[in-house]
Amino acid sequence: MSENYRDCVEACYICAAFCDNCAASCLEEEDIDMMRECIRLDMQCANLCRLTAQFIALGSDSVKELCKLCADICQKCGDECGKHEHDHCQECAKACHHCADACRKMAA
Amino acid sequence: MSENYRDCVEACYICAAFCDNCAASCLEEEDIDMMRECIRLDMQCANLCRLTAQFIALGSDSVKELCKLCADICQKCGDECGKHEHDHCQECAKACHHCADACRKMAA
Amino acid sequence: MSENYRDCVEACYICAAFCDNCAASCLEEEDIDMMRECIRLDMQCANLCRLTAQFIALGSDSVKELCKLCADICQKCGDECGKHEHDHCQECAKACHHCADACRKMAA
Amino acid sequence: MSENYRDCVEACYICAAFCDNCAASCLEEEDIDMMRECIRLDMQCANLCRLTAQFIALGSDSVKELCKLCADICQKCGDECGKHEHDHCQECAKACHHCADACRKMAA
Repeated sequence: MSENYRDCVEACYICAAFCDNCAASCLEEEDIDMMRECIRLDMQCANLCRLTAQFIALGSDSVKELCKLCADICQKCGDECGKHEHDHCQECAKACHHCADACRKMAA
Repeated sequence: MSENYRDCVEACYICAAFCDNCAASCLEEEDIDMMRECIRLDMQCANLCRLTAQFIALGSDSVKELCKLCADICQKCGDECGKHEHDHCQECAKACHHCADACRKMAA
Repeated sequence: MSENYRDCVEACYICAAFCDNCAASCLEEEDIDMMRECIRLDMQCANLCRLTAQFIALGSDSVKELCKLCADICQKCGDECGKHEHDHCQECAKACHHCADACRKMAA
Repeated sequence: MSENYRDCVEACYICAAFCDNCAASCLEEEDIDMMRECIRLDMQCANLCRLTAQFIALGSDSVKELCKLCADICQKCGDECGKHEHDHCQECAKACHHCADACRKMAA
């Protein structure tokens, strides 16, 4: 794999791990009523990131289209997480935005 | 879930099961040299179908884009499988083409 | 695939679809405070069911151990969902318990 | 997440990436006839590692059982990959054995 590819695989898996952790942590927050959209997007983002990393490592011909879609969801998830002050949300927002950048580079 | 949604989830999971079975069966064929592309696409198609079914059932806002991509890969995988006479390839081709149609309906 | 195998793959995917739908629906319920454990288990159950179905269709040597674990989580998830009156919870409980039975048969 | 948890999540995702890459590379080797078992185990190992990483990050109660199973498959996959001289097999063997160790620590 080229360096760009490796970076994106790594960014996707780090993002997935923070999204899973954020979803599970949101489910234990007192203010869960405000965390609905965050949990919803975390679930989607984590799973799409895992598939994107898999397709990159498999050398799929569909990597560009998939990375474009993954960038969109990472951006949305990062924007939502960024609205909340919990540490797990702020860390997750950072990982999502970094992954969105890495995916946009791959999609270009 | 609406009827269209249910049909597409079902088509995706049936397609995934036939692709997994086809990949594993191709790996045991004597003429494995000719089955490389079939195995490669089966692996991608099965995993993308599972994610697509998940996103539909989760009610994701990204369903249309994902179904468009899934339809493309199902079509390619079905076309490749259709070239081979093995029963598992022919059954898989049928499931892939059916899923491609269901995904195109969702993406429209 | 033998009939037992096919039945279990089907039960796993149906269970995954109901768990995804239940998780997304719980996230929109007014009484989300009571649905935390249901969402948490739905997420795990859906993803483990998908992997189990994949391993069965791939003909993995680890199918028995995986089905044993899948049966345990389906049972827990079905028991939790069964406590709630929402239609999506009741339907999900039924699918989980059916899948737990199918996985126990495979694990035996 | 504790340090043990983080280490295991990281080992699982690195293992998944090397297994995906190894499977795709094996499919392009001239001596594909000898790589059948390697491809078969790579596919299983990559997907189980991804699920295990997800369950750890979600804080699932089933982490120990899942890590035990993941360690078994990583060990098998690493042993098989280690038999082949291709760089992608040797790198993959190393990642699998490292992940097997990390999972055994979690399962203990």
